[in-house]
Amino acid sequence: MIILGIDPGLATLGYGVLRKDERGNVSAEDYGVVLTPKEERLPTRLAILEEGIQKVLEKYKPDEVAVEELFFSKNVTTGIAVAHARGVALLTCVKFCGRLFEYTPMQIKQALTGYGKADKKQIQLVTANLLRLKGIPRPDDAADALAVALCHSFTSRLSALYTI
Amino acid sequence: MIILGIDPGLATLGYGVLRKDERGNVSAEDYGVVLTPKEERLPTRLAILEEGIQKVLEKYKPDEVAVEELFFSKNVTTGIAVAHARGVALLTCVKFCGRLFEYTPMQIKQALTGYGKADKKQIQLVTANLLRLKGIPRPDDAADALAVALCHSFTSRLSALYTI
Repeated sequence: MIILGIDPGLATLGYGVLRKDERGNVSAEDYGVVLTPKEERLPTRLAILEEGIQKVLEKYKPDEVAVEELFFSKNVTTGIAVAHARGVALLTCVKFCGRLFEYTPMQIKQALTGYGKADKKQIQLVTANLLRLKGIPRPDDAADALAVALCHSFTSRLSALYTI
Repeated sequence: MIILGIDPGLATLGYGVLRKDERGNVSAEDYGVVLTPKEERLPTRLAILEEGIQKVLEKYKPDEVAVEELFFSKNVTTGIAVAHARGVALLTCVKFCGRLFEYTPMQIKQALTGYGKADKKQIQLVTANLLRLKGIPRPDDAADALAVALCHSFTSRLSALYTI
């Protein structure tokens, strides 16, 4: 089973692709970012994001997609830009894969470290360890995307247990 | 020439279609709203918006599209939801029509009444008068969409004059 994680952003959108076997073991299949040039107009940047996400969807054909929810930072303008990008990410993914899930940053931290207020560095270290990667995935957006995919993989495993 | 105006929203997205003749006279071709059910999940609602906008684009084949910029209200949560919808609207429109323009609420007010702080009611009355409509278009979102299309029609006429 393939899980795609998305960390939405306008300038940099992170993605992480996990493979989960029947025993629940997960490994990183791929991760990276879709970049949009700051000098382009917003509609053009959104079209570039859609194209980049579509390429990942078509290459890996995920069974499930997990998208990070927007953490509302102090900067409202940035938040609005990210929300435009996130709208495009949700639309592009849901058209490809109906099994789309959303997780808050706190849910991701909780799932990976057992502590909802863990810092970014801890999450990245846990992500790298769980996926047996040699170092922390770069850039941060790709690491965050792997983290949301991992969070989904754990959460859905638990939900599966509960339904037995 | 056909101009499509969009007033972005998640629950209610307004659209207004104007025809502009060679002499610069404008008339309302159509206006209305795309609605999304509150009980649906966000990704599904975004897909409903895309479908609704696509129908309007395919029916009227606009030469130019004008989309209202997000006015940041006190309610950040609502603003974020609208920004998701606006991202989808911009993406859907730019894929159909590269001539896409964005206007702030203040620019729209200024273009229609000469006063950037005119109230909603005034804008609606001016919109109805300019388009020789019998009453104020309903709902408000459709009236707002006609207003942004009108704003674009005036602004682009002026820009055309300047380039002579």
